Amino acid sequence: MSQSQESWLVVGAGLAGALAAIYLARSGRKVLLYEKRSDPRGTTMEGGRSINLALSTRGLAALEGVGLAEKTLEAGVPMQGRMIHDEQGDTSFQPYGKDESQVIHSISRGGLNLTLLEALSTEPNVELFFDQRCINVDLEEPAAEFEHAKTSERTRVSPDVVLGADGAFSAVRARMQIEDRFSYRQEYLEYGYKELNIPPTEDGGFALEKNALHIWPRRNYMMIALPNAGGSYTCTCFWPFAGRHGFDQLTTSADVRSFFKAHFYSAAALMPDLEQDFFNNPTSSLVTIRCAPWYKSDKVLLLGDAAHAVVPFYGQGMNAAFEDCLDLDQCLRLHPGDRLSAFAEFYRRRKRHADALARLAVDNFIEMRDHVGSPTFVWKKRLEIVVQKLLPWYRSLYSMVSFSRIGYADAIAIHERQKRTVKRTLWALGIAAIAFTVWRISRQ
Amino acid sequence: MSQSQESWLVVGAGLAGALAAIYLARSGRKVLLYEKRSDPRGTTMEGGRSINLALSTRGLAALEGVGLAEKTLEAGVPMQGRMIHDEQGDTSFQPYGKDESQVIHSISRGGLNLTLLEALSTEPNVELFFDQRCINVDLEEPAAEFEHAKTSERTRVSPDVVLGADGAFSAVRARMQIEDRFSYRQEYLEYGYKELNIPPTEDGGFALEKNALHIWPRRNYMMIALPNAGGSYTCTCFWPFAGRHGFDQLTTSADVRSFFKAHFYSAAALMPDLEQDFFNNPTSSLVTIRCAPWYKSDKVLLLGDAAHAVVPFYGQGMNAAFEDCLDLDQCLRLHPGDRLSAFAEFYRRRKRHADALARLAVDNFIEMRDHVGSPTFVWKKRLEIVVQKLLPWYRSLYSMVSFSRIGYADAIAIHERQKRTVKRTLWALGIAAIAFTVWRISRQ
Repeated sequence: MSQSQESWLVVGAGLAGALAAIYLARSGRKVLLYEKRSDPRGTTMEGGRSINLALSTRGLAALEGVGLAEKTLEAGVPMQGRMIHDEQGDTSFQPYGKDESQVIHSISRGGLNLTLLEALSTEPNVELFFDQRCINVDLEEPAAEFEHAKTSERTRVSPDVVLGADGAFSAVRARMQIEDRFSYRQEYLEYGYKELNIPPTEDGGFALEKNALHIWPRRNYMMIALPNAGGSYTCTCFWPFAGRHGFDQLTTSADVRSFFKAHFYSAAALMPDLEQDFFNNPTSSLVTIRCAPWYKSDKVLLLGDAAHAVVPFYGQGMNAAFEDCLDLDQCLRLHPGDRLSAFAEFYRRRKRHADALARLAVDNFIEMRDHVGSPTFVWKKRLEIVVQKLLPWYRSLYSMVSFSRIGYADAIAIHERQKRTVKRTLWALGIAAIAFTVWRISRQ
Repeated sequence: MSQSQESWLVVGAGLAGALAAIYLARSGRKVLLYEKRSDPRGTTMEGGRSINLALSTRGLAALEGVGLAEKTLEAGVPMQGRMIHDEQGDTSFQPYGKDESQVIHSISRGGLNLTLLEALSTEPNVELFFDQRCINVDLEEPAAEFEHAKTSERTRVSPDVVLGADGAFSAVRARMQIEDRFSYRQEYLEYGYKELNIPPTEDGGFALEKNALHIWPRRNYMMIALPNAGGSYTCTCFWPFAGRHGFDQLTTSADVRSFFKAHFYSAAALMPDLEQDFFNNPTSSLVTIRCAPWYKSDKVLLLGDAAHAVVPFYGQGMNAAFEDCLDLDQCLRLHPGDRLSAFAEFYRRRKRHADALARLAVDNFIEMRDHVGSPTFVWKKRLEIVVQKLLPWYRSLYSMVSFSRIGYADAIAIHERQKRTVKRTLWALGIAAIAFTVWRISRQ
């Protein structure tokens, strides 16, 4: 493109970093991508054990922009709604969208990461480095220093821009955090999560309904399961760390088996390795990260979880990170040769929506674990579907978040406005009905 | 006390650290106090230039507990209320309390720190170390490593307990922050502050009313001045960093002088070194820090600004830190031999009040810079004084915060309840008056 090619150091080759690198490389920039973990290319993916993610409209739009949507969808499993499992083992289905075109996709994190890295391998402007842990960042030069996991050799990289795409515990952000006037917030839930597994049936099929996100809501705790293409399900328990229904309450294999039999009856029978998985797999924490600003001059920028990690309950963490990549690409195109304006506009566009998503994600945990199983909730969801069919302009909050690219904060505002309108309409209809009845009686 | 004396490493010999060390030493504990700065004892304090603080009931109670209240008050200047200076140079006085016993005290930070350090010098259980910067903390052992500012020599200290009293940018807290499930938040205002000076008059007297906290409220910016015992005032400008009325707008000495003449008329004439001070003194930022929890097992504890730094607008930062010292002492006495319970109770007692104070402090900035000069505010304050005299149970929020030891969150709750009661009473009186009038008219 230009005579002196702009060089970007992308820290982190996870989902956000890898996709950002593709966009940057395709716009003619030189990209150096440094990743802490080892190169996953060439190693075999363990099918049934991968963490999976829900890919929806925003993430898909960003993948489409680099021609990777189709390939990604092929490896995924569409989920048309929530399958609710009650304590008696009965199930009920709640569709996500107004029709079958509105689905979210269960995608393997490892598989998608591999797809992105393989796409990067063919880009001429990109160099990939693995086993490189970021140990220091100079925000002024800018530069970053890395230590090789195996050789302990240190490397200093001095690009034009450092892009921090190194996740919730970002080393780049940690350096920005000690700058004056950098606002920062990390908040943990009192809940942890633990992954478990439902293997395929003996004939290689799905042990539960394939095209659904399964939820076992139990008021103050829950389990969910997402289908994997190979027939297995990745289950995740979201329980309090301690106390009633907490992880700390189950200390023996017998405890685990009997707790699951009592509370997750329909799943327990499908989990032969339950006790082993329960004690082998870690109990991980759930963090929300907010910071401001996301950039330092025109030299350092944060994106994805490094800028705005959210809890997983709206299935939007990856989607928001991918939308960042798309928006950053647009902002850089809107301000050619003026990175500072591009970064400022990117931050202005994304920040309030990222903050809104953080709230939505925490709120949706309460909805998923507590309300989703209640008769009132089911009734409301059904009413919402009727309203959506009667009023073509009505859009549920879930559908705006998952099936549109309306900014998260705008989606909340539209949702609040619609709720008021529907409420007023119902009042007006009620008053009209009473007036009509009075009129009928008065004529008798 | 006990056979094997419990040893506490106190990191930071500022106000909170020094007072905590006195309480700990007096309860028979061995105290090692490490401070980053040089030993201020023996150096001469520069009278007119010291930063000053408002000491009120909470701080006084904690100083009384170690017999230092009287000495501290002798060196301070009581302030009976706010003196408001309008743009025309006219003044009006708003008393803080319902009578002259309710005053706050302007105290020199350096002087008070010296008083505390001198008291520590006479404690047999205390060792003081200066020029020692904390560079590392081990939360498990526990231990802390220090580097000497002059010799660069490193020292490792392994006490029973590490007490982080090292202020808003605490090194102890920084180490806790990377622990899993440690919640943390740092938020900056878009406003900065800069200190200026009003020297004593030629005959050594006070150039403004002595027993008042002076405020020049100008809606989105303001200046305040607190009296020093020597006759000078320490002024602090709280202005936006940038934009309208921002620090960045004044770039020449002429700018500064004409801005002060236009907006702080009554002060400008009293500030001979204004231009010099303005460009020599730094523009500092205003941060609020929240974190949770404040302790790690029974080995590491945070206190004062390290746990809950607030912006200075309610004059409660030091008072809250001193109240921490008093409460910690009580909690340790309540749970002899069980530090974990003592720390847990200390945290439980203090945390929600610290959070409440953080909100109060930010809200009071808006009150001080914007409302305090408005006729509505003046009218409300006068009404409040009348209500306080008529209803002996009524206590203003300011008086509960400054002249009582009611927890900050409880003070807010009481204030809200009282407001509702007064509102209802006024409504009832209004209705009664109308009813009475109607009755009178009907009898005519």
